[in-house]
Amino acid sequence: MCVKIHTGKSAICILRPTTMKHVQAEIISAGTELLLGFTVSSNSSFLSRILAGLGLDVYKHVVVGDNTGRIAHAVRAALRRAHVVVVTGGLGPTLDDVTVDGVAAGLKRTWRFDPFTWSKIERRFRARGIEIIPSMKRQARIIQGAEILPNRVGSAPGQLVRVQKHCVVLLPGVPSEARAMMEDAAQRLKRLLRLPWVIESRDFLVTGLSEPQVEARAEDLLTMGGAVTCGIYACPGSVTLRLTAKARTRQAAVKLMAPFEKKIKSRLGSHLYSADGTPLEQVVGGLLARKRLTLAVAESCTGGLVSSRLTDTPGSSRYLRSSIVAYDNREKIRLLKVPKRLLVRHGAVSADVVKAMAKSARKSAGTDLGLAVTGIAGPTGGSKAKPVGLVYIALDHKNRALCERYHFSGERKDIRDKGVQAALNLVRRALLE
Amino acid sequence: MCVKIHTGKSAICILRPTTMKHVQAEIISAGTELLLGFTVSSNSSFLSRILAGLGLDVYKHVVVGDNTGRIAHAVRAALRRAHVVVVTGGLGPTLDDVTVDGVAAGLKRTWRFDPFTWSKIERRFRARGIEIIPSMKRQARIIQGAEILPNRVGSAPGQLVRVQKHCVVLLPGVPSEARAMMEDAAQRLKRLLRLPWVIESRDFLVTGLSEPQVEARAEDLLTMGGAVTCGIYACPGSVTLRLTAKARTRQAAVKLMAPFEKKIKSRLGSHLYSADGTPLEQVVGGLLARKRLTLAVAESCTGGLVSSRLTDTPGSSRYLRSSIVAYDNREKIRLLKVPKRLLVRHGAVSADVVKAMAKSARKSAGTDLGLAVTGIAGPTGGSKAKPVGLVYIALDHKNRALCERYHFSGERKDIRDKGVQAALNLVRRALLE
Repeated sequence: MCVKIHTGKSAICILRPTTMKHVQAEIISAGTELLLGFTVSSNSSFLSRILAGLGLDVYKHVVVGDNTGRIAHAVRAALRRAHVVVVTGGLGPTLDDVTVDGVAAGLKRTWRFDPFTWSKIERRFRARGIEIIPSMKRQARIIQGAEILPNRVGSAPGQLVRVQKHCVVLLPGVPSEARAMMEDAAQRLKRLLRLPWVIESRDFLVTGLSEPQVEARAEDLLTMGGAVTCGIYACPGSVTLRLTAKARTRQAAVKLMAPFEKKIKSRLGSHLYSADGTPLEQVVGGLLARKRLTLAVAESCTGGLVSSRLTDTPGSSRYLRSSIVAYDNREKIRLLKVPKRLLVRHGAVSADVVKAMAKSARKSAGTDLGLAVTGIAGPTGGSKAKPVGLVYIALDHKNRALCERYHFSGERKDIRDKGVQAALNLVRRALLE
Repeated sequence: MCVKIHTGKSAICILRPTTMKHVQAEIISAGTELLLGFTVSSNSSFLSRILAGLGLDVYKHVVVGDNTGRIAHAVRAALRRAHVVVVTGGLGPTLDDVTVDGVAAGLKRTWRFDPFTWSKIERRFRARGIEIIPSMKRQARIIQGAEILPNRVGSAPGQLVRVQKHCVVLLPGVPSEARAMMEDAAQRLKRLLRLPWVIESRDFLVTGLSEPQVEARAEDLLTMGGAVTCGIYACPGSVTLRLTAKARTRQAAVKLMAPFEKKIKSRLGSHLYSADGTPLEQVVGGLLARKRLTLAVAESCTGGLVSSRLTDTPGSSRYLRSSIVAYDNREKIRLLKVPKRLLVRHGAVSADVVKAMAKSARKSAGTDLGLAVTGIAGPTGGSKAKPVGLVYIALDHKNRALCERYHFSGERKDIRDKGVQAALNLVRRALLE
């Protein structure tokens, strides 16, 4: 894990000209379930991206339990460092949703019950046939002096509290609600804080190279300072380079990045599958749609993950015709017409079988392309000759069949995910040729 | 989001008998990519569960950037409150992996290069054909006085540093490496801290009831104090009740929970799909395996998610024969023999079509059960009569077909996930009857 960040020299301070170089933000997630490991805190991740897009530097994420005193303390501590404090979670109807109490205590303010907000919440529940219970009224408690942030997705509204020149933003914990509300609140924050710059980022996604290999090709970019910076991050099957520029206008930021974009593209060549953060399944989908090609999939060890990734994208029915998950050898024979002798001679995890699967998927669905994956995801089922992690991928395209053999490391989930990534990348590379 | 936690009264203090009631832990995740929202910090989640299992109370998670000074500050601040500080991330080979420097600075210690550790890392890289570059030696830097924690999964070792009676544990950022290492280190910590109790938890998973409905049925449990406590947590399509008991021995803890387990079971009835945290796909798989039944799946809007969930479980080939993702109407006709007139008259998202899909999946695969899902996942494609979120599910089982209609809220991902959950639950309910 490695990210190189050099903050732009052009940062201009608005709030504390003498002491601060940057406008800082902190995110507090309230939720005992997060501390217990019941659930993963994903909100701080997208909230960070939205805040970074405003030109705010996020220096800290904190998770505290649903406890009035600890929330109050966390808010006060964060306000000593940060101009914007975002608190997510704990706005629900139950007695343990104490974020309003905690923030109010931290700011030494009171809260009031807002009948207008309550009538909106009540209408929403009634329309959905949800029984009204008294505790739901807790969602209509508004901190003294706060602006109400409407909830486009769920019931509990958010709040924006100004504390001198600082802002505290309260968001629900449900990710889809928090995201929509923060996107709406971003423009309000920009005006309130009189943020004069914009931050533009561009994600360059690479597959087929390891993180050190990408780093070696982009070393000068990763260590450069100035208004444009470059970071690197790896996850299973993919490495991301992120360019970030800070400037007065969006156009100026884009212009600043242009020469570095060019460098990245020339150094990474066809390993670069996206120059704007588009995930691989969307890149593949876009190529298929543009070339008006259709695809049929046959999966074994990935068990439906290739097709579920492809169908994550709305409109994927234009190019994905069907997918057959033939988990059982009998089904490989029945649904995919894999000759029994191939299965007997080479085994289900073999080049011959995966090619037969791809060809049959294409031919029977009448598509332009047939993609197949077979392998041993583990943890059992491996042997010396065919170890756990062995994955074969084939793409059948009219007059030729491409076939690749991989030996992936990691747990069952890693192996399946890497298999999906390699399969989608094979389609991409074939379509680019 | 609502969790009610009451810490057991039986907590016994070892480290600071006069000032502390509980042995506290904090988790620090180091990674600029986390603050930038590049990635979601999932480590703190499973690390919390492992620490809770030792009887430690986790009061805080903190995320800081890859910055020596800020890591040092975070470690010092955490040690003022916590007996165990776990730092994850930043042990890699690149110049931005500065966790060793940061923790060493925070503890006012030095680090040394350990040739034995380096020879192990070097061997590992060579065996995998990875080119050795000088920066990799950074992974062999060990803090003065630290114990080395071997890495079973990857290259960078972890470290355990004793600071008087406190412990600082350094773990890699890669989740599979961090998890394995923490599990190994747990027993070491238990001995070092002389933790006299065990914590036992039991997760009760519910579907088909909303969080307030579950809360209403378990209100007395959720508000009880004492050695056994109960928490509640909801995620799309599922609500969890967690019982936690603290006692001298595992057996004593289990015995303490027994009467509450009984209450939960009787109050939630068949809505309870798991009394030990087993995910729904495994519960369904277990039922199928026990009854020696086989299943074939036909999916439309879920695009392979039902089968990928089922095949998450090793050994699922015993009961899952195949899955057909017929994303296109032509494929519903070809692969699933859905009569064209049904598609024309009722549309692909209808009770008649989903029943035909389930029946065909079962009959053609020769399985005992056929499960089918069709719906409108959005964001487009909805109409007044058939809005986004409308999902039909059918289960064909010999002489009868069960069919259900749902109208799910949320984004494309939520709707697909809720559809999968409802489909798996339909199988479970049918098998229980």
